[in-house]
Formats: sequence, structure tokens, C-alpha cells
Amino acid sequence: MKQLYIFIFLLSITRTLQGQNQQVLTPIGFSEVSITDAFWKPKMEKVATTTLQTCILQTEVKTPRIRNFEKVARKQGEKHEGIYYDDSDVYKALEAIAYALKTHPDPALEKKADEWIDKIAAAQLPDGYLNTYYTLNELENRWTDMEKHEDYCAGHLIEAAVAYYNTTGKRKLLDVAIRFANHIDSTFRLANRPWVSGHQEIELALVKLYKVSQEERHLKLADWFLAQRGRGFGKGVIWDSWKDPAYCQDAVPVKEQKEITGHAVRAMYLYTGAADVAVNTGDTGYMKAMKTVWEDVVHRNMYVTGGIGSSGRNEGFSQDYDLPNESAYCETCASVGMVFWNQRMNALTGESKYIDVLERSLYNGALDGLSLSGDRFFYGNPLASNATHERKEWFGTACCPSNIARLVASLGDYIYAKSANGIWVNLFVSSDAKIKLADNEVSVSMQTNFPLEGKVKISLSPSTQNRFALYIRIPSWADGEPVSGNLYKYLTNYQSNISFFVNGKKVEVKVEKGYAVIERQWEARDEVSFSLPMDVRRVIAREEVSQNKDRVALQRGALIYCVEGIDNNGKAWDFYLPDNAKFTESKQQILHEPIIALQTEAITFKPTPDGQGLKPEKKKITAIPYYTWCNRGKTQMQVWLPRRVHSIRINYDE
Amino acid sequence: MKQLYIFIFLLSITRTLQGQNQQVLTPIGFSEVSITDAFWKPKMEKVATTTLQTCILQTEVKTPRIRNFEKVARKQGEKHEGIYYDDSDVYKALEAIAYALKTHPDPALEKKADEWIDKIAAAQLPDGYLNTYYTLNELENRWTDMEKHEDYCAGHLIEAAVAYYNTTGKRKLLDVAIRFANHIDSTFRLANRPWVSGHQEIELALVKLYKVSQEERHLKLADWFLAQRGRGFGKGVIWDSWKDPAYCQDAVPVKEQKEITGHAVRAMYLYTGAADVAVNTGDTGYMKAMKTVWEDVVHRNMYVTGGIGSSGRNEGFSQDYDLPNESAYCETCASVGMVFWNQRMNALTGESKYIDVLERSLYNGALDGLSLSGDRFFYGNPLASNATHERKEWFGTACCPSNIARLVASLGDYIYAKSANGIWVNLFVSSDAKIKLADNEVSVSMQTNFPLEGKVKISLSPSTQNRFALYIRIPSWADGEPVSGNLYKYLTNYQSNISFFVNGKKVEVKVEKGYAVIERQWEARDEVSFSLPMDVRRVIAREEVSQNKDRVALQRGALIYCVEGIDNNGKAWDFYLPDNAKFTESKQQILHEPIIALQTEAITFKPTPDGQGLKPEKKKITAIPYYTWCNRGKTQMQVWLPRRVHSIRINYDE
Repeated sequence: MKQLYIFIFLLSITRTLQGQNQQVLTPIGFSEVSITDAFWKPKMEKVATTTLQTCILQTEVKTPRIRNFEKVARKQGEKHEGIYYDDSDVYKALEAIAYALKTHPDPALEKKADEWIDKIAAAQLPDGYLNTYYTLNELENRWTDMEKHEDYCAGHLIEAAVAYYNTTGKRKLLDVAIRFANHIDSTFRLANRPWVSGHQEIELALVKLYKVSQEERHLKLADWFLAQRGRGFGKGVIWDSWKDPAYCQDAVPVKEQKEITGHAVRAMYLYTGAADVAVNTGDTGYMKAMKTVWEDVVHRNMYVTGGIGSSGRNEGFSQDYDLPNESAYCETCASVGMVFWNQRMNALTGESKYIDVLERSLYNGALDGLSLSGDRFFYGNPLASNATHERKEWFGTACCPSNIARLVASLGDYIYAKSANGIWVNLFVSSDAKIKLADNEVSVSMQTNFPLEGKVKISLSPSTQNRFALYIRIPSWADGEPVSGNLYKYLTNYQSNISFFVNGKKVEVKVEKGYAVIERQWEARDEVSFSLPMDVRRVIAREEVSQNKDRVALQRGALIYCVEGIDNNGKAWDFYLPDNAKFTESKQQILHEPIIALQTEAITFKPTPDGQGLKPEKKKITAIPYYTWCNRGKTQMQVWLPRRVHSIRINYDE
Repeated sequence: MKQLYIFIFLLSITRTLQGQNQQVLTPIGFSEVSITDAFWKPKMEKVATTTLQTCILQTEVKTPRIRNFEKVARKQGEKHEGIYYDDSDVYKALEAIAYALKTHPDPALEKKADEWIDKIAAAQLPDGYLNTYYTLNELENRWTDMEKHEDYCAGHLIEAAVAYYNTTGKRKLLDVAIRFANHIDSTFRLANRPWVSGHQEIELALVKLYKVSQEERHLKLADWFLAQRGRGFGKGVIWDSWKDPAYCQDAVPVKEQKEITGHAVRAMYLYTGAADVAVNTGDTGYMKAMKTVWEDVVHRNMYVTGGIGSSGRNEGFSQDYDLPNESAYCETCASVGMVFWNQRMNALTGESKYIDVLERSLYNGALDGLSLSGDRFFYGNPLASNATHERKEWFGTACCPSNIARLVASLGDYIYAKSANGIWVNLFVSSDAKIKLADNEVSVSMQTNFPLEGKVKISLSPSTQNRFALYIRIPSWADGEPVSGNLYKYLTNYQSNISFFVNGKKVEVKVEKGYAVIERQWEARDEVSFSLPMDVRRVIAREEVSQNKDRVALQRGALIYCVEGIDNNGKAWDFYLPDNAKFTESKQQILHEPIIALQTEAITFKPTPDGQGLKPEKKKITAIPYYTWCNRGKTQMQVWLPRRVHSIRINYDE
């Protein structure tokens, strides 16, 4: 049986490495995009300063993460402190620094990064191995426990190395990463030694490395890691009779997977890596499986915030349609992973629905993980709170802070893409970019106040007058349904027709795969303009989601709203919102963050003075964008607001 | 500094081993007591059959616990399966079997125990060491990690060995235990090598061993373990900058402790062991500290069920007065530990308040851990549930099932005690006992239907006519306050005068330390009778317990009541109970368990058909004894019932 697997596996490697690149779109990298946006630019600046300084302080001073590397170099028999996967936080912070340096050069920050890199390089063993936990504590046991995140840490090292090389041109960390990757390749793939990564991550990292190193072995190793899964090699190591193989997506081979299971971040990194391998090998098997898995995520297991992984027990997925609000896990890293994976799915298909999900996860589930001040974090992002949640300075397992930092710092990656004869606008973010199309270079400039307002202007200046198509994503929320599938729908049917203008004149557009296509001869300073509909929409969930029975969520543009106690006399769980309540919008600030708040009138019930009765009473309520909650202390919150009363609890507010 | 500690420590050992035994009471052991009780006898029979068979099935067949011992004996390089402390579950099941065999002889069960004992003995190393995890996986690392429960497992081995020897007279396991204890004594105490037990338990076990072995070194070793704590030896091993030394009661020396902290079960075992050492060495230092710690537990940190340890995060104590109901951890083992500790405190002081707490923990917090069917268990015992809790067949960490089994099997230990000239009745349980008082042997026979009814008759037949005192505990709940301290009090003042009769004639009694004292010349078949007040009492918590604001708990005799959804149209969180509501009592059965149910009329609010309004409505409610909840499926439950409305939540039932 095992021989058969190996045969099939070799056959598939051979076939796929000869295949055709299926990628429809090439995303424009963040280094080609200059962001001028009122919403995102201040956040990127905050990340480049406050958030990264927080990561540095925690990594270097308040926790022993950097000190572990120093100990390896000192060789004085000192033991590892912290958790065995702590190296990864150093690498991920370094990756975020690399992205920030590209857009916000800062010699002091670069010096700090070089200092870290020297320490990391000094901790690499002569054979290329690099892991402070094993090197300090039990080197004789390295590579014996697939669950101990050695390859996961390697993956983050590789990602950091590629990012730092791309920003600075400095090869030191890249060479460290290549030596480590080659060590892994020799130890496993070339030695034909089975190994299932207990926490996927190295697959996508190796494809990034391959793009820089151009060494085929790095791509082959990524593919090899994918092919290891679901063959039973992890039995007794990363899973056993006590632990489910589906937890780490090891129950069936990746290409045969149909359902989303287990740990959400592991799953997202796995599928991102599979998509990257598919693009570079032309292997269609992964994509076929992933389309089915994606539907399982988005049609049955995704929160309205784009968050995933409802259960804290496994940091992951539970049953279809089980989407509890207060106990929602929705790890920040999982939403970051949704951004990664959906970008790949969009690039491979040219379909806008993947960006709809990406945008939802980005503006809601992921962004919620970072405080407005930039120095506090959510690990989980619940959709309701009884004033029990608060943002933290750091975590014992500190994956989320540097993950949201690297995402925001590289936001430019997700705005534009190109195809053979087209420029694709995926997100609405004020920015300038130069995009090469065949022999033409097009200067693109977008101006918008999205997500606060819906007007968007895009100026195009081709270097040579030329015919090409501009593809503008029509967000699903603007056009009849909040998101692909029918997990969520609008309470009332809604159809908007967005009018597109070129140089002020309305143009007819055709719509392809969710994009408005304007194909013409473009001239310098041509300006495309349109308005996205920004009215407040009531979203309801399908009835299978029992937690949202008789409830409604509010969405305005890309933003999901919530009601927080601090704006509502301390209580957010004591009212219902009649379906005919009208909203008024007002510009407000939460700390320094400008927002559009929604005001309306709900119904509450007030106890009589003796506490023996209840009488109905109007309650003015204010809703704010979900990503801004919990920046003003611990307070009640809910995203899904009751539309009517079907039950009450008495005295459960405290 | 370390030298100073060692000096003080040696001084204290020397002094205390010369001290006087302070014990006021000697508990009568369960083997001297024959239980005939309608409440407890069926439970003991269920434990002796169903519960123990469940433990055997899980330990031997469904999990690898016994197989680990077999592997050690086979010496074929097989690895340990399961968790490193799993040996302890085997020992604790064996201890429960030993108790059950005493009262329910069963040759098949004894054969099974002998079979296990052979396997355990075969796994002992020549130097006395016995631990399947280390022996199979990393013998070279034994005794290097104080947190890995080697001494904890040793403690449970010792307890099992003593129990089995006491029941059967067979020495095989006892000799294994003595060899292991001597190995530990040589490795640490005699070698002057610091060691802080990461999970206390061995201290109390060693005192039990000392009583059988009569070897002074076993008592000295117990005292030595106690004296190790709070001196910094655990730093970097069982606690560090990431983990609080208070978690395992290692922040200050035991005799200087004033507050209850950390892991609840560790704390209970520690103080039980300290009390046992104090009794046998006459050292007053432990007792002084423990009286203060006990007040901290009972006056500020105990649930009305006698459960302790409110927080699941540390399986232990949080802040004073922080007693959340739904998330209450209240581990079954911690309530078992409360029974152990409070019995010792009572024996050392002769004060009834300790038995008040023991009884509360036994009939509520501990007994709730065992299903009525005897084969399902609660690890935690919350005081409210939104239909999310259910009893389990077993646990990964399986300490609770065998712990509640051994407690119930040895229930006879807690009913009677004696002093130089007195017989003490602590619990009200139908039973026959022979109690030796100087040259007199007194046959005691108690008849009662407690806790369902309050009448108690006690017949005394001394072998020689003799003057001695009968001390009958007057439960605090019968006499003005639910429990020592003012954490809980009755809603309305209440004073009951219990009348005592001897041979039908009322007698005046004096009250000492919470006991009614009847001192006289007793003759054969003298009968003492009295009635405990069994009316329903409303208990309220002090206002510092914010979770119980505007709430009331119902207590009838020793039993705390709760309202469960299954008896109340599926909902237990939707009403308030006016202070003037009257109760009616009715005999019912839950499965086969006879109970007194309480019926009364509460107020709920029902949504209007359109869900836009609420109107008050009477709701008949039924309350049942807390220990019987969750035996009929997953359903809402609460112990603390709202007395009035101060707030509502809308649509949070699902």
C-alpha cells in the first residue's frame, strides 16, 4: 500500500512539474504600490512604529525569545526558555519589519533587524539546522516529533528571509534560510523519510523561497510536504487514538479533501501553500479539492466578519453552521490566513468572490485583532461579549501580533492585479501604482474615502496609448448578496446598479466573474469614476445557524457593525431592533479613528422599581464598525442584534 | 540564606517530633462501621459494582494505563502511552477497590486487584523506583522535573497499598510501596537534595504508610516534603517568571501561609497532609497557618455547594468573592479534598464547623461528580448551565472518577469519632458501629432517613454500664447560619431549638463547639432521638459576590437545590422567584433516586405573538437536589435563582 502511494506520488510530481501555469492573475506586489489612503495609511504608519516597537520590546526584552538565540551562540549549556515554537515570533516580527522598511525606511529599525539576523545566523548549526529549543535542550531528539513545530519555525524563517532580501537586497538571512531548507530537503525528501508537518506553514514559505532562489528543489520540497499528508505517516505522532487526524488536515490526502476540518490557521496555511504550489507546478489536483473546501468554509462555516474557526477547543472548525457568537474563537491569524488563501484563489481563477471574502476578513475579522492604538491585540475575535474580553499587550503563544503587523505592512499586495491584457482593481484603497502590461507601463492612481464613503476615482496613464481592459471588482455586498453562497443574505431583496463613468461620461460595462470590464484605448489621465452603494444593509443568517435565530447584523459597505455597551448606557444585550427602525449616520471618532456611526431606535424593557415587573421603553442605540470595538475598556458588545423577543434571561448581565 | 532555612528546618523537625499529639478526636474507620442507610448504601453498592467496573474497563481496556505496566515488565523498548501521571489512576482505582472489598467482599474483584498488583510489582525497578512514564521513555531523566508527578503517583501507590493491606492483609503492594518510599527517602531527604512536589499528595500518603509501617522515616519524609515548600527550590522547575509559585502553594513556607491560592486539589492534599503530620508530630505550626487559610477558603472563596476553585484557567482559586456560577470549575477532586481536609481539622480541634463544611462538600460539590447511574462523571461542577454541560464516561486526565469512587466507598470514615470519654456523631447516616472507649465497647446504631427527613434515632449499648458523653453535631444550617463566616446567610433570621430525647424523655443538653453533649450513665439499648429542622431555607450571598446579586439559593437540610430545565418546560433561566413564594414538598424519583422535590410559583415574562412585547406570567417551578442534576440529558440549570429583575438579556437562550 505504501509503495502504491509512493508510486502515485512520484507520478504526480513528474506530471505536475511539467504542467502549465494556470494562474489567471498576477497580483501587484506592495512594493509597486504607494498607499495614500486616509483609512489604511495611518494604520500602516502605526504598525511601522508602535506595533513593531511593541513586537521588538516583547521579543527582545520582556520575553526570552531573542535571548534563546544568544544562548545557542554562547554554547554554555543554558536551557531554552519559553515555548518550543517561540522562534517563529522572531521571524514573523522580522518579516513585518521588512515590509515596513520598504514603505517606511528607518535606519534604526533596519539596524535592529540586522542585529537580530546576526544572532539568528550565529545560532545555525554547521549542517544548516536552526531551532533554539532543540539545540539548547535536546539536540539528539531533533526531527523526531512532527508536532514540535521545527518545520513551522523554518517556514517563518524562510518568509522573513525572502521579505528582508526583497526589501534590502541583503542576503545574510536568505543564505541562512537556503541552508536550512536544503538541510530539510536532504533530511527528508531526498532521504525518502516520511514527515508530516504538525503545523503547516513551510509549504507556502518554500514557494516564496523558490521564487527568489530559483532552485527547483525548494518547489519540489513544498510539493513533497503537501503530498505527505493523509497517508498515515502522522499516526502516533501528530495524532493518535486521542487526537483527531482531521485536526491537522491529515485524515485524507490534500487533493482528496472535501471538507474544512480542524485547526483553522493550519488549514489556511496549508491551502495557501497548496495554491502556491499549484500555480508554479500547474498541478490542477490541489485546485479542484480547494474549490470544494472553500465552499465548505464560506457557505457553512464562516462568520459574517470573515472570521473562521468557531471553537476554542481545537482553535478551529466544529460542525457546519455552528457559529456561536460569544465563544467564537475566530483567531486573528485565521483571518490573516483567509486573506492569504483567498488572494491565491482569486489569482488562480480571476473570480471576484474570493476577494469578497478576502475583503470581509481583512476589514473585519483580521483588522479587529489590532487595537486602534497599535499596541494591543486580540487573539480571538468574538462576535458578542459580556464585557469579559479585552485586548492584551502580548500572549504566551504570540502568533497574532506579528501576523496582523505583517499583513497591514504588506497591504499593498492586495489592491491590484494584472492579466495578459488587463489591470484588475480588487480593493478600494487610495494609492498610486505603476503596472507593466506587455510593452506598456500604466500609472494608476486611485482616490477614495472608502470604507467611509463609496465614491471611487481611478486615473490611468499608460506610457503608450494602448488598448487594454480595466477590471473593477463589483463587491457582492453591493450587488444583491453579502457573500457567496446562501449562509448570509439580506433581509430585504436589494439590487443596485453601479454606474461607471469615463472622464465624466457614463459607459456601459460588461460584467465578467464579478468584475466590471471597461476595455478601450486608454489615454493619459483618463479617469474612471463610480460610486459604491453605502447604505446600511440588514443581514440575516440561514436558519441552520441557531445562534442567530431572530437576529440581524448590520453591514455598511465592507464593514460589519456592532453595538457596544460604552455607547449605549453600558448595555448591549438588552434590546431588540425592530425591522422598520431607520438609521441615521454620523461622523464620529473612536480615539483618533474617524468612523461613520449608525443611530437608531430600539426597544428595551425596564424593570419596575420593585423589580417585579418589566415595561417596554425606547432605547436610542449607536452602532460602530466591528473592528473598532473594545478600544475603550471592557464592555458588552454584540454583532447580531435581536429583531424581536423569543426568549429572555433574567439577571445575567453581571 | 539556604543554610539558615536548613537550620530552621532541622530545628523544627527536632522540636516537633518531640511534641505532643494534639488530636482531640479519633475518627472511627469505615471498617468499624456498617452502613445501612437508605441514601448512602445504594450509592456504595453502585460504586462497588458499576463505578469500579467502569474504572477497570477504562484503566485496563479502553486506555493504556495497565498496559504501560505490562510494557515495563516486558522490557522490549515499547514507549509509554497516555499522560505521564496516568499511573495514579490505576492506584486510585485500586484504593477504591480495597475500600469496596471491605464492605462488599467480591472474590472476582479481589482477583482483578491481585492481578493488577502483580503487574505493578513487576514494574518496580530493583532500586525501588516505580513510574511507567519515566521507565519506558526516559529513565535517565527521572527525578529531574518536579512537575512531572513522580511523587504524586508514588503517593497514590502508597495510599492504595495501605488500603489494600488494611482490607486483605496482603503485603505484596505494601512492600512495593515501602521500597518506593524508602527509595525516595534515600534519594532526597537523606541525601539533603531539595525537591518540591509539583502536585502534593505524597505527604498525606506517607503518614498513612507510617501508621502501618511504624517506620519513623516515613513520617519524617512527609514532614520533610512539607518543609521543602516556599523556599525557592521550585523556581525554574515547577514555577518561573511565566508561572506563579502560588499556583502550587510554593510562594511561602506552609507554616507562614495565610491565604488560599492556586490549584485547588494541590492545596487540599497539601493541607490534609500537613494536618496528618501535625497530628503525628504534635507540631502546632501547621495548624496555626491552616486555621487562617481555612477561613480564607470558607469565608471568601467557597461555593454554596462546598465546591472550591472557581477558575478553570488554573483549576483553582481566583480573587476573593469571585464565584461565577456558569463557569465555576469546582473540580470534583477538590470537593473530595475538602472532605479529607475538614475531617482532619475537626479531629484536631473537636469543632463542628469543619464537619459543616465537610457535609456541604460531600452531599453537594463532591456527590454531584458521580452520576446516579454510577458510570458517568463530572470533572467540574458548575452552579449554572446553559444546557452545555454533560456527564462524561471518562476523561483524558481521569483523576475524578476514581476519587469520588474511593470517597463513597470509604464513607464510613466520616460518621463517628471518639475522644477520651466521648462518642461523637458527625454525620447522620443509618449505620451500626462498635466503638471502644477505654475498657468499654459501645454498640452504636443510628437510624435516619436523612437527608430526606430530619428524624434521627441513636441507640447505644455499652458493654459495661458506664458514664461517657455523646456528642451530637448540631449542623450550622439547623442553627442560624448556613455555614461558618458570613459569606452566606439566611434571607430571614432563623433560630431553631432542637429538642433531644433519651428514651423518649426530653433532656437538657449543653452545647460545646457546635455539639450537643449528653453525658450520663448509659445502659444497654438507650435511645437518643431528635429531629433536625428540614424546612426550606433561602440563602443569600454577601454583596461582594457580584454574581449572586439579587439571587437566592434554596437549601433543605444538607442539600442545596437547583432548578433544571427538564422539570421546567426546558428553561431554567427565565424567571424570578418572589421572596414570598411558598414551597410545597413532594416525594419524587429521578431515575431510581428518591428525592424531595420543591414546588413553587415563580414569575416569567412571555413574548407577545409578534415578539414585540413581554407580559408577566406565573410559572410553576420545580427544584431538585443539586447533586441529581444532569442525569436526564443536557438542559439549563441554576442554583442561584433571581429574586427580582434587575436586568434582562434578550434572545440568549440558544
